[in-house]
Amino acid sequence: MPTIQIPSFLVNGNAEALGISALDRGLAYGDGVFRTFPVRHSQPVNWDLHYARLAADSAVLGIACPPAAQLLNDIQQLFDNAASAVCKIILTRGVGLRGYRPPDDVLVTRIVIRSVMPDYPPENVQHGVRLHLCQLRLSEQPALAGIKHLNRLENVLARMEWQDAALAEGLLLDAHDTAIECTSSNLFARFGDVVCTPDLSRCGVAGVTRSRILSRLPELGYQAEVAPLPLQRLLQADEVIICNSLYLAWQVVEVAGTHWQAQPLAAQLRLSLQE
Amino acid sequence: MPTIQIPSFLVNGNAEALGISALDRGLAYGDGVFRTFPVRHSQPVNWDLHYARLAADSAVLGIACPPAAQLLNDIQQLFDNAASAVCKIILTRGVGLRGYRPPDDVLVTRIVIRSVMPDYPPENVQHGVRLHLCQLRLSEQPALAGIKHLNRLENVLARMEWQDAALAEGLLLDAHDTAIECTSSNLFARFGDVVCTPDLSRCGVAGVTRSRILSRLPELGYQAEVAPLPLQRLLQADEVIICNSLYLAWQVVEVAGTHWQAQPLAAQLRLSLQE
Repeated sequence: MPTIQIPSFLVNGNAEALGISALDRGLAYGDGVFRTFPVRHSQPVNWDLHYARLAADSAVLGIACPPAAQLLNDIQQLFDNAASAVCKIILTRGVGLRGYRPPDDVLVTRIVIRSVMPDYPPENVQHGVRLHLCQLRLSEQPALAGIKHLNRLENVLARMEWQDAALAEGLLLDAHDTAIECTSSNLFARFGDVVCTPDLSRCGVAGVTRSRILSRLPELGYQAEVAPLPLQRLLQADEVIICNSLYLAWQVVEVAGTHWQAQPLAAQLRLSLQE
Repeated sequence: MPTIQIPSFLVNGNAEALGISALDRGLAYGDGVFRTFPVRHSQPVNWDLHYARLAADSAVLGIACPPAAQLLNDIQQLFDNAASAVCKIILTRGVGLRGYRPPDDVLVTRIVIRSVMPDYPPENVQHGVRLHLCQLRLSEQPALAGIKHLNRLENVLARMEWQDAALAEGLLLDAHDTAIECTSSNLFARFGDVVCTPDLSRCGVAGVTRSRILSRLPELGYQAEVAPLPLQRLLQADEVIICNSLYLAWQVVEVAGTHWQAQPLAAQLRLSLQE
Protein backbone atom coordinates (compact mmCIF):
# COMPACT_ATOMS: atom_id res chain seq x y z
CA MET A 1 0.00 0.00 0.00
CA PRO A 2 1.42 3.39 -0.93
CA THR A 3 1.36 5.86 1.96
CA ILE A 4 -0.55 9.05 1.22
CA GLN A 5 1.59 12.06 1.94
CA ILE A 6 -0.62 14.90 3.05
CA PRO A 7 0.30 18.09 1.20
CA SER A 8 1.87 20.90 3.21
CA PHE A 9 1.24 24.55 2.54
CA LEU A 10 2.03 28.12 3.37
CA VAL A 11 -0.66 30.82 3.51
CA ASN A 12 0.83 34.28 2.95
CA GLY A 13 4.22 32.81 3.80
CA ASN A 14 2.99 31.48 7.12
CA ALA A 15 3.74 27.83 7.82
CA GLU A 16 1.66 27.91 11.01
CA ALA A 17 -1.50 28.95 9.21
CA LEU A 18 -4.29 26.48 9.79
CA GLY A 19 -6.05 27.48 6.62
CA ILE A 20 -7.70 30.38 4.88
CA SER A 21 -10.47 32.64 6.11
CA ALA A 22 -14.00 31.39 5.56
CA LEU A 23 -14.57 34.89 4.15
CA ASP A 24 -11.89 34.57 1.45
CA ARG A 25 -13.23 35.45 -1.99
CA GLY A 26 -11.34 32.49 -3.42
CA LEU A 27 -13.81 30.29 -1.57
CA ALA A 28 -16.88 32.49 -1.94
CA TYR A 29 -16.61 33.11 -5.69
CA GLY A 30 -13.58 31.23 -7.03
CA ASP A 31 -12.13 34.74 -7.31
CA GLY A 32 -8.52 33.81 -8.01
CA VAL A 33 -6.02 31.96 -10.20
CA PHE A 34 -3.63 29.05 -9.80
CA ARG A 35 -0.69 27.26 -11.36
CA THR A 36 0.75 23.75 -10.92
CA PHE A 37 4.32 22.74 -11.79
CA PRO A 38 7.09 20.33 -10.78
CA VAL A 39 9.78 21.25 -8.27
CA ARG A 40 13.11 19.38 -8.50
CA HIS A 41 15.65 19.65 -5.68
CA SER A 42 13.69 22.69 -4.42
CA GLN A 43 13.92 24.43 -7.83
CA PRO A 44 10.62 25.16 -9.62
CA VAL A 45 10.79 23.87 -13.21
CA ASN A 46 10.17 26.46 -15.93
CA TRP A 47 9.49 29.01 -13.22
CA ASP A 48 9.76 32.04 -15.50
CA LEU A 49 6.99 30.71 -17.74
CA HIS A 50 4.71 29.74 -14.85
CA TYR A 51 5.21 33.04 -13.08
CA ALA A 52 4.56 34.96 -16.29
CA ARG A 53 1.22 33.12 -16.76
CA LEU A 54 0.28 33.61 -13.11
CA ALA A 55 0.97 37.33 -13.39
CA ALA A 56 -0.88 37.63 -16.71
CA ASP A 57 -3.93 35.72 -15.47
CA SER A 58 -3.99 37.78 -12.25
CA ALA A 59 -3.85 40.97 -14.30
CA VAL A 60 -6.93 39.99 -16.31
CA LEU A 61 -8.90 39.61 -13.06
CA GLY A 62 -7.40 42.75 -11.54
CA ILE A 63 -5.66 40.77 -8.78
CA ALA A 64 -2.27 42.07 -7.57
CA CYS A 65 0.20 39.24 -8.28
CA PRO A 66 2.92 39.06 -5.57
CA PRO A 67 6.52 39.58 -6.71
CA ALA A 68 8.27 36.48 -8.04
CA ALA A 69 10.88 36.72 -5.26
CA GLN A 70 8.17 36.38 -2.59
CA LEU A 71 6.72 33.26 -4.19
CA LEU A 72 10.21 31.79 -4.73
CA ASN A 73 10.94 32.40 -1.07
CA ASP A 74 7.77 30.47 -0.15
CA ILE A 75 8.90 27.62 -2.40
CA GLN A 76 12.35 27.56 -0.79
CA GLN A 77 10.69 27.34 2.64
CA LEU A 78 8.27 24.60 1.70
CA PHE A 79 10.28 22.23 -0.49
CA ASP A 80 13.15 20.07 0.64
CA ASN A 81 15.76 18.56 -1.65
CA ALA A 82 13.44 15.81 -2.96
CA ALA A 83 14.20 14.82 -6.54
CA SER A 84 10.63 15.54 -7.63
CA ALA A 85 7.54 17.11 -6.07
CA VAL A 86 4.58 19.22 -7.18
CA CYS A 87 3.94 22.86 -6.34
CA LYS A 88 0.54 24.49 -6.65
CA ILE A 89 0.26 28.25 -6.21
CA ILE A 90 -3.20 29.72 -5.58
CA LEU A 91 -3.70 33.48 -5.55
CA THR A 92 -7.08 34.84 -4.47
CA ARG A 93 -8.31 38.41 -4.48
CA GLY A 94 -8.35 38.19 -0.67
CA VAL A 95 -10.82 38.39 2.19
CA GLY A 96 -14.00 40.34 1.64
CA LEU A 97 -17.27 41.14 3.28
CA ARG A 98 -20.46 39.99 1.55
CA GLY A 99 -21.04 41.05 -2.07
CA TYR A 100 -19.43 40.58 -5.46
CA ARG A 101 -17.77 43.96 -5.53
CA PRO A 102 -14.14 43.66 -4.34
CA PRO A 103 -13.31 45.87 -1.33
CA ASP A 104 -11.07 48.81 -2.21
CA ASP A 105 -8.38 47.78 0.27
CA VAL A 106 -8.43 44.03 -0.42
CA LEU A 107 -5.09 42.18 -0.01
CA VAL A 108 -4.23 39.17 -2.17
CA THR A 109 -4.12 35.78 -0.43
CA ARG A 110 -1.21 33.63 -1.61
CA ILE A 111 -1.19 29.91 -0.97
CA VAL A 112 1.71 27.63 -1.89
CA ILE A 113 1.04 23.91 -1.61
CA ARG A 114 3.54 21.06 -1.79
CA SER A 115 2.39 17.61 -2.81
CA VAL A 116 3.99 14.43 -4.11
CA MET A 117 4.45 13.79 -7.83
CA PRO A 118 1.48 11.68 -9.05
CA ASP A 119 2.29 8.02 -9.56
CA TYR A 120 1.46 7.87 -13.29
CA PRO A 121 1.28 4.35 -14.79
CA PRO A 122 4.47 3.66 -16.81
CA GLU A 123 2.22 2.27 -19.58
CA ASN A 124 1.09 5.81 -20.33
CA VAL A 125 4.57 6.55 -21.66
CA GLN A 126 5.25 3.08 -23.07
CA HIS A 127 2.00 2.38 -24.90
CA GLY A 128 0.06 5.66 -24.95
CA VAL A 129 -3.26 6.54 -23.32
CA ARG A 130 -6.98 6.13 -23.96
CA LEU A 131 -9.33 9.08 -23.49
CA HIS A 132 -12.89 9.25 -22.21
CA LEU A 133 -15.05 11.50 -24.42
CA CYS A 134 -16.78 13.79 -21.90
CA GLN A 135 -20.52 14.42 -22.20
CA LEU A 136 -20.17 17.78 -20.47
CA ARG A 137 -19.54 20.55 -22.97
CA LEU A 138 -17.37 23.51 -22.03
CA SER A 139 -19.18 26.85 -21.97
CA GLU A 140 -17.86 29.81 -23.94
CA GLN A 141 -16.70 32.84 -21.97
CA PRO A 142 -14.18 34.98 -23.89
CA ALA A 143 -13.60 37.16 -20.78
CA LEU A 144 -12.16 34.16 -18.90
CA ALA A 145 -10.95 31.85 -21.68
CA GLY A 146 -7.35 30.70 -21.42
CA ILE A 147 -7.06 31.81 -17.77
CA LYS A 148 -6.29 29.21 -15.10
CA HIS A 149 -8.85 30.62 -12.65
CA LEU A 150 -10.54 28.97 -9.69
CA ASN A 151 -13.93 28.45 -11.38
CA ARG A 152 -13.34 24.82 -12.30
CA LEU A 153 -16.68 23.11 -11.71
CA GLU A 154 -16.82 22.09 -15.37
CA ASN A 155 -13.55 20.20 -14.95
CA VAL A 156 -14.86 18.57 -11.75
CA LEU A 157 -18.13 17.47 -13.39
CA ALA A 158 -16.26 16.20 -16.43
CA ARG A 159 -13.77 14.24 -14.29
CA MET A 160 -16.66 12.66 -12.38
CA GLU A 161 -17.96 11.12 -15.62
CA TRP A 162 -15.60 8.13 -15.59
CA GLN A 163 -14.09 5.80 -12.99
CA ASP A 164 -12.19 3.41 -15.31
CA ALA A 165 -8.49 3.84 -14.46
CA ALA A 166 -7.63 2.63 -17.97
CA LEU A 167 -8.90 5.98 -19.29
CA ALA A 168 -6.10 8.44 -18.52
CA GLU A 169 -7.94 11.63 -19.36
CA GLY A 170 -11.25 13.04 -20.59
CA LEU A 171 -11.57 14.91 -23.89
CA LEU A 172 -13.65 18.08 -23.59
CA LEU A 173 -15.61 19.60 -26.47
CA ASP A 174 -17.54 22.86 -26.65
CA ALA A 175 -21.25 22.98 -27.56
CA HIS A 176 -20.34 22.97 -31.28
CA ASP A 177 -18.45 19.62 -31.16
CA THR A 178 -15.11 21.42 -31.28
CA ALA A 179 -12.32 19.75 -29.31
CA ILE A 180 -10.78 22.12 -26.74
CA GLU A 181 -8.61 20.27 -24.18
CA CYS A 182 -8.73 17.48 -21.60
CA THR A 183 -9.74 17.96 -17.95
CA SER A 184 -6.11 18.64 -16.83
CA SER A 185 -4.26 18.65 -20.15
CA ASN A 186 -3.93 20.49 -23.41
CA LEU A 187 -4.32 18.78 -26.75
CA PHE A 188 -2.36 18.54 -30.02
CA ALA A 189 -3.21 16.75 -33.28
CA ARG A 190 -0.74 16.10 -36.11
CA PHE A 191 -1.83 16.27 -39.77
CA GLY A 192 1.21 15.47 -41.92
CA ASP A 193 3.88 17.92 -40.76
CA VAL A 194 1.35 20.37 -39.27
CA VAL A 195 0.69 20.03 -35.54
CA CYS A 196 -2.49 21.78 -34.43
CA THR A 197 -3.65 22.76 -30.95
CA PRO A 198 -7.15 24.16 -30.36
CA ASP A 199 -7.71 27.88 -30.28
CA LEU A 200 -8.56 28.85 -26.67
CA SER A 201 -10.11 32.26 -27.20
CA ARG A 202 -13.60 31.13 -26.11
CA CYS A 203 -12.92 28.38 -23.55
CA GLY A 204 -10.13 26.22 -22.14
CA VAL A 205 -6.96 26.80 -20.14
CA ALA A 206 -3.73 27.81 -21.86
CA GLY A 207 -1.10 25.66 -20.17
CA VAL A 208 2.62 26.41 -20.03
CA THR A 209 3.50 23.05 -21.62
CA ARG A 210 1.18 23.87 -24.53
CA SER A 211 3.10 27.09 -25.17
CA ARG A 212 6.44 25.31 -24.76
CA ILE A 213 5.39 22.69 -27.33
CA LEU A 214 4.22 25.40 -29.74
CA SER A 215 7.67 26.98 -29.56
CA ARG A 216 9.53 23.65 -29.88
CA LEU A 217 7.63 22.26 -32.86
CA PRO A 218 9.53 24.14 -35.60
CA GLU A 219 12.94 22.84 -34.46
CA LEU A 220 11.47 19.31 -34.50
CA GLY A 221 10.49 19.81 -38.14
CA TYR A 222 6.80 20.52 -37.63
CA GLN A 223 4.64 23.51 -38.42
CA ALA A 224 2.68 24.72 -35.38
CA GLU A 225 -0.93 25.77 -35.83
CA VAL A 226 -3.44 27.25 -33.38
CA ALA A 227 -6.93 26.84 -34.82
CA PRO A 228 -10.41 25.55 -34.05
CA LEU A 229 -10.27 21.73 -34.05
CA PRO A 230 -13.62 20.06 -34.72
CA LEU A 231 -13.91 16.58 -33.19
CA GLN A 232 -14.43 15.06 -36.63
CA ARG A 233 -11.14 16.57 -37.81
CA LEU A 234 -9.34 15.47 -34.63
CA LEU A 235 -10.45 11.87 -35.23
CA GLN A 236 -8.82 12.02 -38.69
CA ALA A 237 -5.47 13.20 -37.32
CA ASP A 238 -2.33 11.20 -38.06
CA GLU A 239 -1.58 11.27 -34.35
CA VAL A 240 -2.87 12.92 -31.19
CA ILE A 241 -1.03 13.85 -28.02
CA ILE A 242 -1.99 15.44 -24.70
CA CYS A 243 0.30 17.41 -22.41
CA ASN A 244 0.67 19.11 -19.07
CA SER A 245 3.50 20.33 -16.86
CA LEU A 246 3.70 17.17 -14.74
CA TYR A 247 3.76 14.29 -17.26
CA LEU A 248 4.86 16.48 -20.23
CA ALA A 249 3.34 14.54 -23.16
CA TRP A 250 1.48 11.29 -23.77
CA GLN A 251 0.53 9.68 -27.06
CA VAL A 252 -3.22 9.11 -27.44
CA VAL A 253 -4.06 5.64 -28.79
CA GLU A 254 -7.85 5.73 -28.52
CA VAL A 255 -10.76 8.11 -28.18
CA ALA A 256 -14.43 7.36 -28.84
CA GLY A 257 -13.66 4.14 -30.73
CA THR A 258 -11.01 5.67 -33.00
CA HIS A 259 -7.60 4.04 -32.58
CA TRP A 260 -4.10 5.21 -33.43
CA GLN A 261 -0.88 3.21 -33.70
CA ALA A 262 1.88 4.17 -31.30
CA GLN A 263 3.89 6.94 -33.00
CA PRO A 264 6.90 9.05 -32.11
CA LEU A 265 5.61 12.60 -31.50
CA ALA A 266 4.97 12.32 -27.74
CA ALA A 267 8.43 10.76 -27.14
CA GLN A 268 10.08 13.44 -29.29
CA LEU A 269 8.27 16.14 -27.33
CA ARG A 270 9.10 14.63 -23.93
CA LEU A 271 12.76 14.58 -24.92
CA SER A 272 12.61 18.17 -26.15
CA LEU A 273 10.66 19.41 -23.11
CA GLN A 274 13.07 17.79 -20.64
CA GLU A 275 16.00 19.73 -22.03
CA MET B 1 -18.95 56.79 10.30
CA PRO B 2 -20.77 53.46 10.35
CA THR B 3 -18.82 50.74 12.14
CA ILE B 4 -18.10 47.67 10.06
CA GLN B 5 -19.21 44.55 11.86
CA ILE B 6 -16.94 41.71 10.88
CA PRO B 7 -18.97 38.63 10.00
CA SER B 8 -18.74 35.65 12.32
CA PHE B 9 -18.87 32.08 11.16
CA LEU B 10 -18.95 28.43 12.07
CA VAL B 11 -17.02 25.81 10.10
CA ASN B 12 -18.57 22.36 10.53
CA GLY B 13 -20.32 23.68 13.62
CA ASN B 14 -17.06 24.82 15.19
CA ALA B 15 -16.98 28.39 16.45
CA GLU B 16 -13.27 28.14 17.22
CA ALA B 17 -12.33 27.31 13.64
CA LEU B 18 -9.90 29.84 12.24
CA GLY B 19 -10.92 29.09 8.70
CA ILE B 20 -11.06 26.35 6.11
CA SER B 21 -8.30 24.09 4.88
CA ALA B 22 -6.14 25.47 2.07
CA LEU B 23 -6.84 22.08 0.45
CA ASP B 24 -10.63 22.51 0.46
CA ARG B 25 -12.14 21.89 -2.97
CA GLY B 26 -14.41 24.89 -2.45
CA LEU B 27 -11.29 27.04 -2.73
CA ALA B 28 -9.44 24.95 -5.31
CA TYR B 29 -12.30 24.57 -7.80
CA GLY B 30 -15.33 26.44 -6.48
CA ASP B 31 -16.66 22.93 -5.88
CA GLY B 32 -19.68 23.81 -3.78
CA VAL B 33 -22.94 25.72 -3.42
CA PHE B 34 -24.27 28.55 -1.28
CA ARG B 35 -27.40 30.35 -0.17
CA THR B 36 -28.01 33.78 1.39
CA PHE B 37 -31.13 34.75 3.36
CA PRO B 38 -32.31 37.01 6.20
CA VAL B 39 -32.47 35.85 9.79
CA ARG B 40 -34.93 37.65 12.10
CA HIS B 41 -34.75 37.13 15.85
CA SER B 42 -32.54 34.08 15.15
CA GLN B 43 -35.15 32.55 12.81
CA PRO B 44 -34.13 32.03 9.16
CA VAL B 45 -36.74 33.55 6.86
CA ASN B 46 -38.30 31.16 4.33
CA TRP B 47 -35.97 28.47 5.59
CA ASP B 48 -37.86 25.57 3.97
CA LEU B 49 -37.45 27.13 0.52
CA HIS B 50 -33.78 27.98 1.02
CA TYR B 51 -32.96 24.55 2.40
CA ALA B 52 -34.82 22.86 -0.46
CA ARG B 53 -32.75 24.80 -3.02
CA LEU B 54 -29.52 24.11 -1.13
CA ALA B 55 -30.30 20.40 -1.11
CA ALA B 56 -31.35 20.36 -4.77
CA ASP B 57 -28.26 22.28 -5.92
CA SER B 58 -26.00 20.01 -3.83
CA ALA B 59 -27.63 16.95 -5.38
CA VAL B 60 -26.84 18.15 -8.91
CA LEU B 61 -23.15 18.36 -8.00
CA GLY B 62 -23.23 15.09 -6.05
CA ILE B 63 -22.45 16.85 -2.75
CA ALA B 64 -24.04 15.38 0.40
CA CYS B 65 -26.20 18.18 1.85
CA PRO B 66 -26.21 18.11 5.68
CA PRO B 67 -29.57 17.55 7.39
CA ALA B 68 -31.66 20.70 7.89
CA ALA B 69 -31.55 20.20 11.67
CA GLN B 70 -27.73 20.42 11.67
CA LEU B 71 -27.76 23.69 9.72
CA LEU B 72 -30.56 25.10 11.89
CA ASN B 73 -28.51 24.23 14.96
CA ASP B 74 -25.56 26.17 13.49
CA ILE B 75 -27.86 29.15 12.89
CA GLN B 76 -29.17 29.00 16.47
CA GLN B 77 -25.57 29.04 17.74
CA LEU B 78 -24.44 31.90 15.54
CA PHE B 79 -27.34 34.35 15.57
CA ASP B 80 -28.52 36.36 18.54
CA ASN B 81 -31.96 37.94 18.86
CA ALA B 82 -31.14 40.83 16.48
CA ALA B 83 -34.18 42.03 14.54
CA SER B 84 -32.45 41.49 11.22
CA ALA B 85 -29.20 39.91 10.03
CA VAL B 86 -27.95 37.95 7.03
CA CYS B 87 -27.00 34.29 6.93
CA LYS B 88 -24.87 32.75 4.19
CA ILE B 89 -24.47 29.00 4.07
CA ILE B 90 -21.62 27.58 1.97
CA LEU B 91 -21.34 23.84 1.38
CA THR B 92 -18.23 22.50 -0.33
CA ARG B 93 -17.47 18.97 -1.44
CA GLY B 94 -14.74 18.94 1.23
CA VAL B 95 -10.98 18.62 1.49
CA GLY B 96 -9.17 16.79 -1.28
CA LEU B 97 -5.71 15.98 -2.50
CA ARG B 98 -4.64 17.33 -5.88
CA GLY B 99 -6.82 16.53 -8.90
CA TYR B 100 -10.34 17.19 -10.13
CA ARG B 101 -11.67 13.75 -9.22
CA PRO B 102 -13.38 13.89 -5.81
CA PRO B 103 -11.91 11.47 -3.25
CA ASP B 104 -14.20 8.53 -2.49
CA ASP B 105 -14.33 9.32 1.22
CA VAL B 106 -14.67 13.11 0.96
CA LEU B 107 -16.68 14.82 3.74
CA VAL B 108 -18.75 17.94 3.02
CA THR B 109 -17.49 21.22 4.55
CA ARG B 110 -20.32 23.36 5.91
CA ILE B 111 -19.78 27.03 6.63
CA VAL B 112 -22.42 29.28 8.17
CA ILE B 113 -21.64 33.00 8.13
CA ARG B 114 -23.46 35.79 9.98
CA SER B 115 -23.26 39.33 8.66
CA VAL B 116 -25.23 42.55 9.08
CA MET B 117 -28.15 43.43 6.83
CA PRO B 118 -26.87 45.69 4.02
CA ASP B 119 -27.70 49.34 4.46
CA TYR B 120 -29.76 49.77 1.27
CA PRO B 121 -30.57 53.37 0.31
CA PRO B 122 -34.25 54.11 1.18
CA GLU B 123 -34.57 55.76 -2.27
CA ASN B 124 -34.40 52.29 -3.83
CA VAL B 125 -37.83 51.57 -2.35
CA GLN B 126 -39.20 55.10 -2.64
CA HIS B 127 -38.16 56.00 -6.18
CA GLY B 128 -36.92 52.79 -7.79
CA VAL B 129 -33.45 51.88 -9.05
CA ARG B 130 -31.28 52.44 -12.10
CA LEU B 131 -29.35 49.52 -13.63
CA HIS B 132 -25.94 49.36 -15.25
CA LEU B 133 -26.04 47.33 -18.47
CA CYS B 134 -23.10 44.92 -18.08
CA GLN B 135 -20.68 44.41 -20.95
CA LEU B 136 -19.80 40.93 -19.72
CA ARG B 137 -22.09 38.31 -21.22
CA LEU B 138 -23.05 35.23 -19.21
CA SER B 139 -21.82 31.95 -20.67
CA GLU B 140 -24.24 29.09 -21.31
CA GLN B 141 -23.76 25.91 -19.31
CA PRO B 142 -26.94 23.84 -19.03
CA ALA B 143 -25.22 21.44 -16.58
CA LEU B 144 -24.83 24.27 -14.04
CA ALA B 145 -27.59 26.72 -14.99
CA GLY B 146 -29.91 27.77 -12.18
CA ILE B 147 -27.57 26.42 -9.48
CA LYS B 148 -26.15 28.80 -6.89
CA HIS B 149 -22.65 27.30 -7.07
CA LEU B 150 -19.31 28.80 -6.06
CA ASN B 151 -18.09 29.52 -9.62
CA ARG B 152 -19.05 33.18 -9.61
CA LEU B 153 -16.23 34.94 -11.44
CA GLU B 154 -18.69 36.20 -14.04
CA ASN B 155 -20.65 37.98 -11.30
CA VAL B 156 -17.42 39.42 -9.88
CA LEU B 157 -16.23 40.72 -13.27
CA ALA B 158 -19.68 42.13 -14.01
CA ARG B 159 -19.87 43.87 -10.61
CA MET B 160 -16.43 45.41 -11.20
CA GLU B 161 -17.76 47.20 -14.30
CA TRP B 162 -19.31 50.11 -12.40
CA GLN B 163 -18.49 52.23 -9.35
CA ASP B 164 -21.39 54.71 -9.49
CA ALA B 165 -23.42 54.12 -6.31
CA ALA B 166 -26.48 55.54 -8.10
CA LEU B 167 -26.61 52.32 -10.16
CA ALA B 168 -28.12 49.76 -7.79
CA GLU B 169 -27.50 46.67 -9.90
CA GLY B 170 -26.06 45.43 -13.20
CA LEU B 171 -28.21 43.79 -15.86
CA LEU B 172 -26.63 40.65 -17.34
CA LEU B 173 -27.32 39.39 -20.85
CA ASP B 174 -26.18 36.21 -22.55
CA ALA B 175 -24.21 36.23 -25.82
CA HIS B 176 -27.46 36.48 -27.80
CA ASP B 177 -28.63 39.76 -26.16
CA THR B 178 -31.12 37.89 -24.01
CA ALA B 179 -31.66 39.35 -20.53
CA ILE B 180 -31.00 36.77 -17.80
CA GLU B 181 -30.68 38.40 -14.35
CA CYS B 182 -28.68 41.00 -12.42
CA THR B 183 -25.42 40.30 -10.59
CA SER B 184 -27.20 39.45 -7.30
CA SER B 185 -30.86 39.63 -8.32
CA ASN B 186 -33.44 37.99 -10.51
CA LEU B 187 -35.48 39.94 -13.03
CA PHE B 188 -39.17 40.34 -13.93
CA ALA B 189 -40.82 42.36 -16.71
CA ARG B 190 -44.55 43.12 -16.94
CA PHE B 191 -46.36 43.26 -20.30
CA GLY B 192 -50.01 44.10 -19.61
CA ASP B 193 -51.16 41.52 -17.07
CA VAL B 194 -48.40 39.05 -17.96
CA VAL B 195 -45.27 39.15 -15.77
CA CYS B 196 -42.32 37.41 -17.36
CA THR B 197 -39.06 36.22 -15.78
CA PRO B 198 -36.19 34.88 -17.92
CA ASP B 199 -35.84 31.18 -18.51
CA LEU B 200 -32.71 29.99 -16.63
CA SER B 201 -32.09 26.67 -18.31
CA ARG B 202 -28.83 27.82 -19.95
CA CYS B 203 -27.42 30.37 -17.48
CA GLY B 204 -28.33 32.36 -14.38
CA VAL B 205 -29.17 31.57 -10.76
CA ALA B 206 -32.70 30.58 -9.74
CA GLY B 207 -33.31 32.55 -6.55
CA VAL B 208 -35.86 31.70 -3.89
CA THR B 209 -37.51 35.12 -4.17
CA ARG B 210 -37.96 34.57 -7.92
CA SER B 211 -39.86 31.35 -7.23
CA ARG B 212 -41.89 33.02 -4.45
CA ILE B 213 -42.87 35.81 -6.84
CA LEU B 214 -43.84 33.32 -9.53
CA SER B 215 -46.19 31.62 -7.08
CA ARG B 216 -47.64 34.93 -5.77
CA LEU B 217 -48.35 36.56 -9.14
CA PRO B 218 -51.68 34.82 -9.84
CA GLU B 219 -53.26 35.97 -6.54
CA LEU B 220 -52.14 39.51 -7.39
CA GLY B 221 -54.03 39.29 -10.67
CA TYR B 222 -51.10 38.65 -12.98
CA GLN B 223 -50.22 35.77 -15.25
CA ALA B 224 -46.72 34.41 -14.56
CA GLU B 225 -44.50 33.50 -17.52
CA VAL B 226 -41.04 31.91 -17.65
CA ALA B 227 -39.57 32.49 -21.09
CA PRO B 228 -36.52 33.84 -22.91
CA LEU B 229 -36.53 37.64 -22.57
CA PRO B 230 -34.56 39.45 -25.30
CA LEU B 231 -33.19 42.82 -24.20
CA GLN B 232 -35.20 44.58 -26.89
CA ARG B 233 -38.41 43.06 -25.49
CA LEU B 234 -37.39 43.91 -21.91
CA LEU B 235 -36.92 47.56 -22.89
CA GLN B 236 -40.53 47.60 -24.17
CA ALA B 237 -41.98 46.24 -20.92
CA ASP B 238 -44.66 48.21 -19.09
CA GLU B 239 -42.58 47.87 -15.94
CA VAL B 240 -39.48 46.05 -14.76
CA ILE B 241 -38.56 44.86 -11.28
CA ILE B 242 -35.60 43.07 -9.73
CA CYS B 243 -35.64 40.89 -6.61
CA ASN B 244 -33.60 38.97 -4.11
CA SER B 245 -34.06 37.52 -0.64
CA LEU B 246 -32.62 40.53 1.21
CA TYR B 247 -34.36 43.56 -0.34
CA LEU B 248 -37.29 41.56 -1.78
CA ALA B 249 -38.25 43.73 -4.80
CA TRP B 250 -37.26 47.05 -6.34
CA GLN B 251 -38.87 48.90 -9.21
CA VAL B 252 -36.47 49.60 -12.11
CA VAL B 253 -36.74 53.17 -13.41
CA GLU B 254 -33.86 53.16 -15.90
CA VAL B 255 -31.61 50.84 -17.86
CA ALA B 256 -29.48 51.74 -20.87
CA GLY B 257 -31.26 55.04 -21.46
CA THR B 258 -34.77 53.59 -21.27
CA HIS B 259 -36.86 55.11 -18.48
CA TRP B 260 -39.95 53.92 -16.68
CA GLN B 261 -42.36 55.83 -14.48
CA ALA B 262 -42.66 54.64 -10.90
CA GLN B 263 -45.34 51.95 -10.86
CA PRO B 264 -46.92 49.71 -8.24
CA LEU B 265 -45.68 46.16 -8.95
CA ALA B 266 -42.57 46.21 -6.74
CA ALA B 267 -44.55 47.62 -3.79
CA GLN B 268 -47.31 45.04 -4.31
CA LEU B 269 -44.72 42.28 -4.38
CA ARG B 270 -42.87 43.53 -1.30
CA LEU B 271 -46.13 43.55 0.60
CA SER B 272 -47.03 40.07 -0.61
CA LEU B 273 -43.52 38.66 0.06
CA GLN B 274 -43.44 40.05 3.61
CA GLU B 275 -46.58 38.13 4.59
